[in-house]
Amino acid sequence: MKAYVKTSRGPGGEVREVPEPTPSRGEVLIRIRASSVCGTDVHIWTWNEWARARVKRVPMIFGHEVSGEVIGLGPGVESLKVGDHVSAETHIADGTCYQCRTGKMHICEHVEVLGVDRDGVFAEYAVLPERNAWKNDPKLDPSLASIQEPLGNALHSLLPEDNIEDLAGRDVLVTGCGPIGLFAILVARDLGARKVFATEVNPVRVRLAERMGADRVYNPKETDVDIARAIRDETEGRGVDVAVEMSGHPSSARLAFDALTPGGRVSLLGIFDNEFPLNFDDAIIFKAARVHGIFGRRMFETWFQAKGLLEKPAFRAKMTEIITHRVPIAELPRAMDLIQSGAAAKVSLEPRW
Amino acid sequence: MKAYVKTSRGPGGEVREVPEPTPSRGEVLIRIRASSVCGTDVHIWTWNEWARARVKRVPMIFGHEVSGEVIGLGPGVESLKVGDHVSAETHIADGTCYQCRTGKMHICEHVEVLGVDRDGVFAEYAVLPERNAWKNDPKLDPSLASIQEPLGNALHSLLPEDNIEDLAGRDVLVTGCGPIGLFAILVARDLGARKVFATEVNPVRVRLAERMGADRVYNPKETDVDIARAIRDETEGRGVDVAVEMSGHPSSARLAFDALTPGGRVSLLGIFDNEFPLNFDDAIIFKAARVHGIFGRRMFETWFQAKGLLEKPAFRAKMTEIITHRVPIAELPRAMDLIQSGAAAKVSLEPRW
Amino acid sequence: MKAYVKTSRGPGGEVREVPEPTPSRGEVLIRIRASSVCGTDVHIWTWNEWARARVKRVPMIFGHEVSGEVIGLGPGVESLKVGDHVSAETHIADGTCYQCRTGKMHICEHVEVLGVDRDGVFAEYAVLPERNAWKNDPKLDPSLASIQEPLGNALHSLLPEDNIEDLAGRDVLVTGCGPIGLFAILVARDLGARKVFATEVNPVRVRLAERMGADRVYNPKETDVDIARAIRDETEGRGVDVAVEMSGHPSSARLAFDALTPGGRVSLLGIFDNEFPLNFDDAIIFKAARVHGIFGRRMFETWFQAKGLLEKPAFRAKMTEIITHRVPIAELPRAMDLIQSGAAAKVSLEPRW
Amino acid sequence: MKAYVKTSRGPGGEVREVPEPTPSRGEVLIRIRASSVCGTDVHIWTWNEWARARVKRVPMIFGHEVSGEVIGLGPGVESLKVGDHVSAETHIADGTCYQCRTGKMHICEHVEVLGVDRDGVFAEYAVLPERNAWKNDPKLDPSLASIQEPLGNALHSLLPEDNIEDLAGRDVLVTGCGPIGLFAILVARDLGARKVFATEVNPVRVRLAERMGADRVYNPKETDVDIARAIRDETEGRGVDVAVEMSGHPSSARLAFDALTPGGRVSLLGIFDNEFPLNFDDAIIFKAARVHGIFGRRMFETWFQAKGLLEKPAFRAKMTEIITHRVPIAELPRAMDLIQSGAAAKVSLEPRW
Repeated sequence: MKAYVKTSRGPGGEVREVPEPTPSRGEVLIRIRASSVCGTDVHIWTWNEWARARVKRVPMIFGHEVSGEVIGLGPGVESLKVGDHVSAETHIADGTCYQCRTGKMHICEHVEVLGVDRDGVFAEYAVLPERNAWKNDPKLDPSLASIQEPLGNALHSLLPEDNIEDLAGRDVLVTGCGPIGLFAILVARDLGARKVFATEVNPVRVRLAERMGADRVYNPKETDVDIARAIRDETEGRGVDVAVEMSGHPSSARLAFDALTPGGRVSLLGIFDNEFPLNFDDAIIFKAARVHGIFGRRMFETWFQAKGLLEKPAFRAKMTEIITHRVPIAELPRAMDLIQSGAAAKVSLEPRW
Repeated sequence: MKAYVKTSRGPGGEVREVPEPTPSRGEVLIRIRASSVCGTDVHIWTWNEWARARVKRVPMIFGHEVSGEVIGLGPGVESLKVGDHVSAETHIADGTCYQCRTGKMHICEHVEVLGVDRDGVFAEYAVLPERNAWKNDPKLDPSLASIQEPLGNALHSLLPEDNIEDLAGRDVLVTGCGPIGLFAILVARDLGARKVFATEVNPVRVRLAERMGADRVYNPKETDVDIARAIRDETEGRGVDVAVEMSGHPSSARLAFDALTPGGRVSLLGIFDNEFPLNFDDAIIFKAARVHGIFGRRMFETWFQAKGLLEKPAFRAKMTEIITHRVPIAELPRAMDLIQSGAAAKVSLEPRW
Repeated sequence: MKAYVKTSRGPGGEVREVPEPTPSRGEVLIRIRASSVCGTDVHIWTWNEWARARVKRVPMIFGHEVSGEVIGLGPGVESLKVGDHVSAETHIADGTCYQCRTGKMHICEHVEVLGVDRDGVFAEYAVLPERNAWKNDPKLDPSLASIQEPLGNALHSLLPEDNIEDLAGRDVLVTGCGPIGLFAILVARDLGARKVFATEVNPVRVRLAERMGADRVYNPKETDVDIARAIRDETEGRGVDVAVEMSGHPSSARLAFDALTPGGRVSLLGIFDNEFPLNFDDAIIFKAARVHGIFGRRMFETWFQAKGLLEKPAFRAKMTEIITHRVPIAELPRAMDLIQSGAAAKVSLEPRW
Repeated sequence: MKAYVKTSRGPGGEVREVPEPTPSRGEVLIRIRASSVCGTDVHIWTWNEWARARVKRVPMIFGHEVSGEVIGLGPGVESLKVGDHVSAETHIADGTCYQCRTGKMHICEHVEVLGVDRDGVFAEYAVLPERNAWKNDPKLDPSLASIQEPLGNALHSLLPEDNIEDLAGRDVLVTGCGPIGLFAILVARDLGARKVFATEVNPVRVRLAERMGADRVYNPKETDVDIARAIRDETEGRGVDVAVEMSGHPSSARLAFDALTPGGRVSLLGIFDNEFPLNFDDAIIFKAARVHGIFGRRMFETWFQAKGLLEKPAFRAKMTEIITHRVPIAELPRAMDLIQSGAAAKVSLEPRW
C-alpha cells in the first residue's frame, strides 16, 4: 500500500510503497476514507525540537486523525464488524497502570500515540486496537469523522472532568483560534454559554471565530484596549467563568487569569515550549481560581459528547466551515504549507495518491 | 392597595383593599408588573389536602411568581436601587441553619415561602427581602421575568448539583409536560442534549412539547408500545442518561427508571401524594442509578443559568409560547379554571384590577 | 486439581478433581492461598430463587473472593510476573460498551462474574484476566487480601463517586451489619466521620459493630425508641449526612431516609428481593435527598482506597476481627452453616483439601 | 475596655482604653476568652509591604482568630443566645454578589475582613455578625476554639470543593509546616490518607510535623536527595495524589508539581509575594494536573468538618501540641517575636491585660 513515511530524522517525509498491515488479536484493519493534519504532524514534518526529542522510531508512517471503514478483524474482536465506519482515538493505553485504573486512560503512564510512537494513518490502510476504534454513524461525512479527535480536545478543555460546573448561562473566553479554539467556540455556544469571547491575530481565524459564534474576537496585536477590562465591562463587572487557553502564548495565559471571575476556572491546552513567570498570588490564589491541565481527551466521554453534537445538522454545518482546505494526501507538502502560512484552519486529506 | 386574599380556610379567594406594605431593614418594596400562576396557587385556591395541612396563616395574600419594579428601599439595602427590575426567589432562608451554611439554602430548615407562609404577590405591591430579589434586565418582558422561578425548577432538575455530568450529547427523558416539564425540554435542547423524549397525555401540552424540541412525545394513554423499549431502540439500546420526573404519577416514575441506562440519573420533582411500590433492586441498585429529590431551586446558581439562557432571543421566543394565556389578575378565577381544565400551560397575570 | 463444583441445578456442591486451567492471552494462572465466602456463594449453595434465575452454567466451580500467587502468565501479560501476590476483581468487563467507555466498568453491559458466569476460585488454582488481577503487598495476610473485594463494596457505598462530599466530620448511619456493613463502619471511622450509627439484630454482629467503632448500635427488634428521632437527638437535630443500607429490609431503607438530614445521601446496596412501597415525597423529594444504587465496586478506585487503608496496622487489626471463622475449604458445608445460622460474620477458607 | 490598637501607619501597636462596642441588628457582642496570632497579624504588626497596601483604616483594633462567649444580642438575632460559646469566621460577606450567590461566600466581591478592614478581636470584647459567629461546644478549650479558623484553611486546602476526590488511601505532600501546614498533616492523617510527606526547614516545625503524623519530613536545605524522586520511590513510582503548598516559596511550588502523579491536584495557599517562572507544560499540562487557589475557608462547610474532627479526643490532643506558646495578650510583642524568630508554631493569647 502507499503511505506517507517519515524516512529520516530531518524535515519532510515521502510517499513509499509499504506492506499492508495485518490486524493482531484485538485489532482491526481499516481502509482510510479521510485523514487530517494536526499541529503535531506539522512538528514531525518540520522536525522541530519537540519532534527531535519525542519521536523515537524512524522510519514510521505518521498522521493520526482519521476515519475509515473496517475491512478486517483480528481474533477476539467482538464490538466491531467488517463494514463499520470508525475513527481513531490516538492514545493507546495499557489498561493496567494507576491512571488507566482510575478513569484517566488519556494520561496512561505507558501511552503510545498513533503516528508518533507507532505507525499512523497517512496511508491507504491502518490497524487500530479495537478499544481505540470509535464507531461512527456511517452517514457521517468522513472528513468530519476524521476531525472528531481535536473536537474532543475542545470538549475536554471546556468540560475537563465528568462532574464539573456546566456551561449553562456562563461566560467563556477562548484564547487562540486555531482549529481547537474554533471548536471550543462552537461547542461553548452549543452547550448554553451566555457570552463567548475570543482572542486571535490571524484574520482568517478571526473571521472563522465570528462564524462559530463568538460575541467578540479581540486581536491583541491590533487593539489598544485592556481586553480583560473590556470583558469585565461586558459581564456586569464579573469576568468570565471559564477560560480555555489554546494559543501557547504566555500573554494569553495571563489574560485568561486576568479576565477570570473569582472562583472561575482556566483550562490550559496550548503548549508554551518554555517556562514563563506568573503572579500566582493575583492570578490564582486570591482569585481562588482552578486550573486544569489538558492533555488528550477523556476516553471516551468526550467521544460520546462529540457524537451527540454531530447528530445536529446545524453543528455539522458550522464544523464543516473549519475545514478550510481539502487536499489529496499525495499533496501533503502543500497541506503543510497551508497550515504553516496561516492560510488554513483545518486541512482535510483525501485518500488520493 | 388591591390584593387577592385567601380570606378563609376553604376554596377560593377574593379581591380586598389592604394597606400597602412597608419595607423593613434589608427589604425592598416593588410595584408588580406581572405575576403568574403556579400549581401551588391552584392547591391553595382549591384548598386541597396539601393546602389544608400546609397553610397556617389566613387571611393571607397568596401567589409567588412575580416580576416588578423597585419603588422603595428599607434601611441597609445596598445591592438594589429604586427603578431596578426584579423577580422573586420564593424561598426565604434563615441563613444560619445547617443547610444554609452548606450551600443548600433552597432547603433551609426554617424556610418561609412567599405566598404560602407570608404575604405573597397577587397584589399591586409587595415587599421582598433584598437577598430574594433577583435583578432582571430591564428590557426583559415582565411576563417572562415572572416565570423564571419555575424555569429555575427545570434547570435544577436537569442540573441538580453544581458538579454533575453535563448534558452534552446525552439523551434525556422528561415525564410530564406541565410548564416545568416544557421548560425542561427547552433547556435540555439548549444545553446540548442529543435526544429528548417526553411523555404527556394532554394534547395541548403534547403539541407544546414538540414545539419545545422533543424528538418524540409519547402519550401513555394512547400508545400500546413499550415506551422504555422504544426509547432504548432510539438510543443504540442504551436508554437515557438523564430522566426528569415532572408528573407525580408512579407509572411515570417507573418508566423513568426503566428507560434509564445503567449509571444514569433520575430527578424527581413531581409530587406523588401517596406512597407507591417500586422494585428498588431493578430500578436503582442493579442499575447503579442515582436519584435526586428536587425541591425549589439552587440559590442562586439556577437564576444565573436562567439569566444566561434568557439573553438569547430564540430561547425567549420558545419560552413565550409556554405562556398560553394572559389574564388580568382581576380574573384570577378564570386563570384557575384554565389550568384545572388542562386548556392552559402557563397563565400569566396582568396587573389589571 | 481439586475444586468445589456446583454439579447440578440444586442445593449444595461437591469436591471434584478437575483439570488445572491454562492462562490464555492476557490471563494469569494463580495458586490460591485464601478464599472467602460471600452471600452470593450462599445463594448458589442453597440454590435459591436468585441462583436459579441467574446461574446459567452448571457444572461450574464457584466462589469469587480470593487471594493467590501468580504461577503462570498467558501471552501478552506485562503488568504482572510470576511470584506476584494478587486478589481478584470479580467483574470481568468487556471494555468496549457504553458503561466501560465512560468510567463505569463495574456496571459493564456484558459483565461476566467470576464464580457465577465462569469458573471461580473455590479450587486449588484459577485463571484471572490480567486486568482483573489486583497486585497485593506480598506481606499482606492472604485472608485479608481475599476479603478486599467486599471491603471495596463498603468503600463504594460510602464514596459512590469520585467527586462526592467526603466524610470529614459527617454523621453516618449503617443499616445492617453483615460483613459489608461492618466494613462500612470501620471505613467511615477511618475517613473522618464524626458519629457513626448502626442497626443490627444479630448479637454477634452487634458486638462487632461496636468493636468497629459505631457510636450506637440499635437493635430494631429490641428497642421501642424511634431510632430516627434518637439519631436526630444525637446530631443537633439534623440527622445523618450519609446512610448506607446494607440489610435488604424495607424497614431499614425507610429508616435510612427518615434519619437523613435534608440534602443528605443514601446508598442502597442490600437487595430487597421484592418491590416495596415508599413515600417518595417525604423520603426523597421534600428532603432533596440523593440516592445511589450500589453494584460492585468502582474499578479500580476502590481497590486503591482499600490498599491505602490496609497499609495501616490498626486498620488491619480491626478488619481481622471481622473474620470470625477460618475453615479449611474441604469443610465448605460447615462454612455455609456458620453463615446461615448467623454465628459468623466473615468466614475465611484455607486452601486445605 | 482594653484593646490592642494599630494606632499609626507604622510598625507595632499599643494597648488602649476604648469604648466597649454595641451590637447592631444581626450582630452579637462577645467577651473574648482566647485569641491567637495569625501570619496576617504579624504583617500588620511589622507593617510590611502587604499591610501598607492593604490596611486602610487606622486606628483599628486588629486580630481575628478568636473564641468567646456571647454576652449581648443585637435586634433580630435568632440562632444564638446569651451564654453561647462562639468563634469567628473572619470573612464578612455581602450575601448579594455573584460569588456569594453561587456558594462562594469566602471570595465575596466586597468581603470585609475582621481585624483588617474593621475592628478585630485583640480586645476584651468584640461584635460579630450573627452569620459569622460559629457556635462551639461549650466544653471545647477556648484556645483550640480560637484556632479553628486556620484549621479551616487546612481543610479547605485538602478538600477545596464539596465534590472532590477524597483522601481515602491517597498520598499527600505538604510543603511548608507553619501552623496551617501542621494542621494539614494532622487532617490528612485523620481523613484516611495513605502516606503523608512534608517539607520544612525549621527544626521546631520539623519535629511537630513528625508528631502530627508525617511519614517523612524533608528539609530542602539539608538534603542532597531529589525530594520528588524520593517521594516517587515511596509511592510505587507514582508520586502524590494531592499536594498542598503552604510555604510561599517558588521552589516548594515546583516541588509540589514535580512530585505529583499525572492527574493529581495541587492546592496553593502560601503567598509568593512576587511572580515566578514555571514550566507550565511539564508542571500542569502534560500531567493533566489540577490547581486550586486557596483563599479563606468554605463557609461554612469547613467549619462543620472542623467541628466533627474536634469531637475526637485524639485529634484535640494532637492539635493542642501545635500551640507551642500561651502568652497573655498584654505581652503581644513577645508573641510577635516568638513567631518571627521561628521558635513558635501557634501562639495562643490569654485574655490577661
